[in-house]
Amino acid sequence: MRDIKVIGFDADDTLWINETFYKEAEIKLCDLLKEYTSPDNITKELLRIEVKNMSIYGYGVKAFALSMIETALSISKNSVSSNVISEIINIGKDLLNKPIKLLDEVENTLKKLNGNYNLIIATKGDLIDQQRKVEKSGIKDYFSHVEIMHDKNESEYIRLLKQLNIKPKEFLMVGNSIKSDILPVINIGANAVHIPFHITWEHETIHNESTEIKTLMSIVELLTVLTL
Amino acid sequence: MRDIKVIGFDADDTLWINETFYKEAEIKLCDLLKEYTSPDNITKELLRIEVKNMSIYGYGVKAFALSMIETALSISKNSVSSNVISEIINIGKDLLNKPIKLLDEVENTLKKLNGNYNLIIATKGDLIDQQRKVEKSGIKDYFSHVEIMHDKNESEYIRLLKQLNIKPKEFLMVGNSIKSDILPVINIGANAVHIPFHITWEHETIHNESTEIKTLMSIVELLTVLTL
Repeated sequence: MRDIKVIGFDADDTLWINETFYKEAEIKLCDLLKEYTSPDNITKELLRIEVKNMSIYGYGVKAFALSMIETALSISKNSVSSNVISEIINIGKDLLNKPIKLLDEVENTLKKLNGNYNLIIATKGDLIDQQRKVEKSGIKDYFSHVEIMHDKNESEYIRLLKQLNIKPKEFLMVGNSIKSDILPVINIGANAVHIPFHITWEHETIHNESTEIKTLMSIVELLTVLTL
Repeated sequence: MRDIKVIGFDADDTLWINETFYKEAEIKLCDLLKEYTSPDNITKELLRIEVKNMSIYGYGVKAFALSMIETALSISKNSVSSNVISEIINIGKDLLNKPIKLLDEVENTLKKLNGNYNLIIATKGDLIDQQRKVEKSGIKDYFSHVEIMHDKNESEYIRLLKQLNIKPKEFLMVGNSIKSDILPVINIGANAVHIPFHITWEHETIHNESTEIKTLMSIVELLTVLTL
């Protein structure tokens, strides 16, 4: 870890709570559609539709809202009422107005890293929603750059490091998703540390046994790891 | 124009057709809702809802699709059928799958500017949709950088020029929107040239008489202007 100069932080579920709000939204959707089928069937159908729409909608709340509407149409065989559609639109808008709740020790850790390392955010999702979160987070000033990525794959990380003039060995990525924050970063020769969040979106879950992954229980442990 | 080193191009309706597809989508929406009111009332209500949602949804097709659904609910007083909602979702998906049609003389002009100037794209909208368009456009390689902006205001342009290490006097912005591509750029001391598209979205229309704006009829005229 001696070569590290720049630390990239994932945002949702690494710096602040996100997936919890999506799970609450899913529960509301299941409640709205409970006359048609079980919560389990509804969440399965939602995931199927989200994954199907991923290539054209990408990530973020607006994609999620549109996929929730499509799920309501599908589950009800196009018989759902307009009121339910209206409620789903409101669930989406509520998600876009959620307060930013930083995870434990985030600000404390950033404060200590700041000055010794160049800190950036590398997140994916809706452009306007992610920028809103960064603005409202109260921790914006710790970061020299905020990159909102269309997808967190190897070529996008290579482009980001090139744009910021960072060598792979100088870069450490910190995040909760093995698929998005860890594996592609390790694969391009950079460093990554995994900090699991207690919920991970099913689409981000990956089963990997061949790569050794550094895992921390809390962001504050970064301070110890970086002195090794 | 002698100091210009970097030319920024707006994308939608400057490099390729965009607003035409949105107008077609609006016509389809009006047809789906014709039993409730006139096309004029529907497009007015759609614009009202789009503008209302702008601060949380931002720009782009997904925002447009959600606002079309909200318009259908509003116009029908929550009595619209699920089939119409399903059709509106399809209108949105169709927009996301439109082919890229370059405007006249675009590629020819970029080819001649390339080498003499550093060319970039500065556009706003959905991250994934704008990246899809750039990838499919066939002209990606002319550009050293693609910036997808949350909003095209003065502070965003200042941030962009700083990030790319460009002085205002070295930058020329080219675009079809006086509000987004011309006025904020002139206001930060950089240069701008307006190339009107035959349709402009009502929200982008601005009435300005105090600033002198350079207007060209076609992108190819840039070649003449830049030698002045």
